[in-house]
Amino acid sequence: MSNDLEGLELRSLVTKEGQLEISLTRVPIADPAADEVVVRVEATPINPSDLGLLFGAADMSTARVSGSPSSPVVTATIPEAMRKAMAARAGESMPVGNEGAGVVVKAGSSAAAQALLGQTVAMMGGAMYTQYRVLKLIQCQPLPPGVSAAEGASCFVNPLTALGMVETMRREGHTALVHTAAASNLGQMLNRLCIADGVALVNIVRKAEQEDLLRGAGAAHVCNSSQPSFMADLTGALQATGATIAFDAIGGGKLASQILTCMEAAAVAKMKQYSRYGSTTYKQVYVYGMLDRGPTELARNFGMSWGIGGWLLTPFLQKIGPEASHKLRERVMAGLKTTFASHYTRVISLSEALQPDAIAAYGKIGTGEKYLIDPSKDTR
Amino acid sequence: MSNDLEGLELRSLVTKEGQLEISLTRVPIADPAADEVVVRVEATPINPSDLGLLFGAADMSTARVSGSPSSPVVTATIPEAMRKAMAARAGESMPVGNEGAGVVVKAGSSAAAQALLGQTVAMMGGAMYTQYRVLKLIQCQPLPPGVSAAEGASCFVNPLTALGMVETMRREGHTALVHTAAASNLGQMLNRLCIADGVALVNIVRKAEQEDLLRGAGAAHVCNSSQPSFMADLTGALQATGATIAFDAIGGGKLASQILTCMEAAAVAKMKQYSRYGSTTYKQVYVYGMLDRGPTELARNFGMSWGIGGWLLTPFLQKIGPEASHKLRERVMAGLKTTFASHYTRVISLSEALQPDAIAAYGKIGTGEKYLIDPSKDTR
Repeated sequence: MSNDLEGLELRSLVTKEGQLEISLTRVPIADPAADEVVVRVEATPINPSDLGLLFGAADMSTARVSGSPSSPVVTATIPEAMRKAMAARAGESMPVGNEGAGVVVKAGSSAAAQALLGQTVAMMGGAMYTQYRVLKLIQCQPLPPGVSAAEGASCFVNPLTALGMVETMRREGHTALVHTAAASNLGQMLNRLCIADGVALVNIVRKAEQEDLLRGAGAAHVCNSSQPSFMADLTGALQATGATIAFDAIGGGKLASQILTCMEAAAVAKMKQYSRYGSTTYKQVYVYGMLDRGPTELARNFGMSWGIGGWLLTPFLQKIGPEASHKLRERVMAGLKTTFASHYTRVISLSEALQPDAIAAYGKIGTGEKYLIDPSKDTR
Repeated sequence: MSNDLEGLELRSLVTKEGQLEISLTRVPIADPAADEVVVRVEATPINPSDLGLLFGAADMSTARVSGSPSSPVVTATIPEAMRKAMAARAGESMPVGNEGAGVVVKAGSSAAAQALLGQTVAMMGGAMYTQYRVLKLIQCQPLPPGVSAAEGASCFVNPLTALGMVETMRREGHTALVHTAAASNLGQMLNRLCIADGVALVNIVRKAEQEDLLRGAGAAHVCNSSQPSFMADLTGALQATGATIAFDAIGGGKLASQILTCMEAAAVAKMKQYSRYGSTTYKQVYVYGMLDRGPTELARNFGMSWGIGGWLLTPFLQKIGPEASHKLRERVMAGLKTTFASHYTRVISLSEALQPDAIAAYGKIGTGEKYLIDPSKDTR
């Protein structure tokens, strides 16, 4: 293979004037260093966690597409109120895409790199919405025999997040957990994981069909936040499971507060004596997503023994260290076709990812739509 | 002294009909067990933390006083919305008062108890708004020579809370701290403590005279939340001090969120590269009071590395264990006339504490009024 390899790469730019521009740019692919490989990306998912960087807080209902079909440019307006938060990235054309998988087409001189030539590997490290990705060996995970790039493309973010939630639950002394937006791809995965591990899980959803989906997948506790009986249902599920930690993908609104209120009600029901400070049962909500970007409203009617905070995968993995992280990754590899399988509603090319109908579908998270990009479908 | 000792005790009752009744009741004083003493209470403060139990969420603007001047009864209505939260204590006449001091007038048979006879001791364990308190030796702390009951009455709640905040800051890896409602009795104490320990403290107040008061007491960083420049002032103070933990007495509203926003701004200012997840600097707010009982509103514009939670003195002391707690208590005893001195605006009897003008004054926390009850002023 010659040195003048080129490929298309998706870029997201926030201009100083408050415009978002998503485009495809042709980039030269550098030769790999000794401990590096070049991977032809064949599958990279659009995760909710990618959308923040991709859309840069722009109002995507204002999106217009220009350019050619094979090289489209999406432009959208960032609302005035969000511009300050975006100032730090203004003017910098940023690559996007947390994870992906593909085939090693070029390898550095080291024996370890050479050994990967022709292999299908999963990758993490960002900038995956691209045709060729140069990366260090440590960012590659060879997929087990018989696992395709599409099957291995989502093997980091969602699987490690699901495992990280259960691990956090255990490390912080809780014995059961609550999950919101529980019918998501991640939620369904967590449900399978908890069933496999015998961990009681309280799933919170907002639609009847999501209840059905999870119950059909074996979930024992599903509470629908749209039902008038939600608070009573949730308190009952918390009493049944003893869950005192929750992972919340929503962020805004009252749901985190309602979970703490119901956890406290479940704890107070077991108390023999009144205390004006409430129960001594420690109750924790971790916010790991932002499906609702509005403010979080805490009623604080749940005693004094509570906490709420942010939770992110990368700091969690840093905290548990490389050895424990490696064990989690091994478990994912063994379950890529079962517990940790991802399901996609559509596979699109990079240029298709810049079309208005696709943006409208994958941009509307929480609807069961999940898109996979296959950059090898684009012509170079 | 005969066995038929009696005394007045303040009681707070929430009726099943949603009425609050505060009254004085004559109670017989039990003989002390071997490891107990009977203390004639001479000083017991009205702390903000006493008001929840005392007022039982009643709307004190509806308070009416009946009964006789020496045995008044205060009646007030509990708003419909608060009754559910009070249901657990309905029908139970509850004693009030977290801490106090007085003279040991009767002692159990043990040598340790006998040794306290005639001594002035500080006490904790609740039910201090009473003329005589029977309690275990472990709940008594003999005051140093020359320290009066009035000087020792507030030696637990505020001093240990101030020490607990600094200790929590250190144990959780922070190096400077933020305090809200910083001109309170506790806030002034914390300011003296931080100056003594060389710990940088950012004081947040809401009035110009509170700024003056703290600056006059040597505070280097005082930010007024009523000023239009508050967010910039606070960010500047956080950059100067590096404070990443706050103790918030307010609870409701946006202040906790604003503190996290400014901490994040101070952290981002030091970052060299944009991250859509914000800074990796961990930012913590502990809510330890409820001056505003409304909901806490979190804007979540402060990255993903943050936490907010409840903080209470008793669980903190349990967490650090008896040895560490004892060290904190010893430090308080050595500083009762300096760092840990409390100042009162009025000394009243139990029956005076049930008069409308007094209730209006000590019930309006955050105004600099602090009342001390001397139950020995009431006739038995």
